[in-house]
Amino acid sequence: MSLSIKDDEIDIVIGALRPDLTSFMNEWRTIFSRFHLIIVKDPDLKEELKIPEGLNLDVYKKPDIDRVVGTSTSTIFSGYSCRYFGYLVSRKKYIISVDDDCYPAKDNKGILVDAVAQHITNLTTPATPFFFNTLYDPFTEGADFVRGYPFSLRSGVQCALSCGLWLNLADYDAPTQALKPEERNSRYVDAVLTVPARTLMPISGINIAFNREVIGPALLPSLRLGGEGKFRWETMEDIWSGMCVKVVCDHLGLGVKTGMPYVWRNDRGDAIASLRKEWEGVKLMEEVVPFFQSVRLSREATTTEDCVAEVANVVKEQLGSKDPMFARAAKAMVDWVKLWKSVGSSTSSPGA
Amino acid sequence: MSLSIKDDEIDIVIGALRPDLTSFMNEWRTIFSRFHLIIVKDPDLKEELKIPEGLNLDVYKKPDIDRVVGTSTSTIFSGYSCRYFGYLVSRKKYIISVDDDCYPAKDNKGILVDAVAQHITNLTTPATPFFFNTLYDPFTEGADFVRGYPFSLRSGVQCALSCGLWLNLADYDAPTQALKPEERNSRYVDAVLTVPARTLMPISGINIAFNREVIGPALLPSLRLGGEGKFRWETMEDIWSGMCVKVVCDHLGLGVKTGMPYVWRNDRGDAIASLRKEWEGVKLMEEVVPFFQSVRLSREATTTEDCVAEVANVVKEQLGSKDPMFARAAKAMVDWVKLWKSVGSSTSSPGA
Repeated sequence: MSLSIKDDEIDIVIGALRPDLTSFMNEWRTIFSRFHLIIVKDPDLKEELKIPEGLNLDVYKKPDIDRVVGTSTSTIFSGYSCRYFGYLVSRKKYIISVDDDCYPAKDNKGILVDAVAQHITNLTTPATPFFFNTLYDPFTEGADFVRGYPFSLRSGVQCALSCGLWLNLADYDAPTQALKPEERNSRYVDAVLTVPARTLMPISGINIAFNREVIGPALLPSLRLGGEGKFRWETMEDIWSGMCVKVVCDHLGLGVKTGMPYVWRNDRGDAIASLRKEWEGVKLMEEVVPFFQSVRLSREATTTEDCVAEVANVVKEQLGSKDPMFARAAKAMVDWVKLWKSVGSSTSSPGA
Repeated sequence: MSLSIKDDEIDIVIGALRPDLTSFMNEWRTIFSRFHLIIVKDPDLKEELKIPEGLNLDVYKKPDIDRVVGTSTSTIFSGYSCRYFGYLVSRKKYIISVDDDCYPAKDNKGILVDAVAQHITNLTTPATPFFFNTLYDPFTEGADFVRGYPFSLRSGVQCALSCGLWLNLADYDAPTQALKPEERNSRYVDAVLTVPARTLMPISGINIAFNREVIGPALLPSLRLGGEGKFRWETMEDIWSGMCVKVVCDHLGLGVKTGMPYVWRNDRGDAIASLRKEWEGVKLMEEVVPFFQSVRLSREATTTEDCVAEVANVVKEQLGSKDPMFARAAKAMVDWVKLWKSVGSSTSSPGA
């Protein structure tokens, strides 16, 4: 782990979509034990949470969410979106977030991957979005910039977001998973790379980390599918938020990395049963990708809050009339920036 | 290897910068034996070539080059640029080219890498330059497009260029190699990825393959440093040509992949002695990268030849006055397109 980071600059945020976190917490215990955890219970989940003893954590449940944001707003945190409540109430510089059906992975040599350490390395070394380095992240130990890489670009830019990957159950959509029910990702690719500026990607919320102080307000719950469900492939909130955060990073000259660390993702869900819901999300991308590829922000947008507000305006103008879902997403983005500012200026702790 | 490709659609082009190719050929024999080889002897090399028996190959020497292109033009093929003569006289669909100080690599499991098979797989499966797939090349066995990847972009585009990588001696510039004389690349990254559209990269000529029918004329010898030498880090011909080919691919909607296959690169050369020459190339990139990032070709440019001619014009206009080297490069590019057309319409074999 980078020497410049203290353990208390990090919050690990877990959205609890299922009640029993015992095996999840125990598997992660050696990696998580030095850090503070924020557990946000999906407000739709009725059962009591089961969380083993001995970890430094705060649990936020529906009454806590209602208290902080009000009962009318708290609905935005249902399902996977409950994680965003953790991002909102954290006061730390860095957030690391892993879905509750993921376990620590092993690398090619069978050694347990410390996902926290790798995310923090990714975030605390520069990103290089303006020219592609063929030997991947030049700040990895044993690597460097290859011949021909301009020296003026070698200092890189600040990395704001680190997107980790998944072994075993890959993050496919329901149609792909339904077509290839036996397919598992067993390829551990020993690399981190900066996603080039102006290149969009499908950012998943399964295993990510970010600099909350720099880019926090751009990770937001805003796009919700009509039939959104409790399986990852039945949601688009993270993909939409990822488009937004990438556009903001590009505009502000910040970097986004992808690759290691991996987590081990366990099976759950019935892809075929989800197909109906997922098609809505699949069709959506055909509109959303060209839209985000064309968005250009103004010079006046100098903060993440400004940028999100500008993106929201363009969403409303250009997509709002195509589907009411987009108009709702635009409004949710504007509301989120307000909420971020108001909650950020107060202090809050669960059960206070 | 892809089933759709016949062995006789491939030429393997080797530039011989040193006289004794015995160990090189013997190491590659099992991989190269099914294919036709074009060996181009560096016209500056005085000694006789030593090439072991039993491979299907043609050797081109200075008299052959003079005969095909004329004595006044043959100087463009000195040093590493001799490979380009092989590209010119080949009549095959695919070219694979490896520097003569490279040997077959082993993968993470210790298995010999068939670089030819991997390059051909890269070239015969689609590239995806318009949206980044976080699980790398979706056409690799066991991989697919991740959730959120637009279905309309999943058919991809034709891949025109495959850039392989290097284990052991990485392709660093002389300053980096001089600063880290002990550094060796030992990281075998089990991935291929499409370099996104509008993203430039330092393409190396050490280990590449391309669809000659589609993009051939854009791989060209044109930029030559004043003090160009016989070590890879003393040249920029491949980096310049790589910028050109990437811009052309982006314009024509073709893909460029990077990653596997690896080759094992042996040490040679004295980085510190090369530093003086290399600085010229290093300074050059500060002009060249912003230039190529800004080049946009016209709609009228619909073939690779058109595109190269347009790039040459812009080089002459925008860079020509900054350094005579650029003006010479522009002229060399125009001349190359003419040469490509004239040699392409004739037939030639060595010693004919």
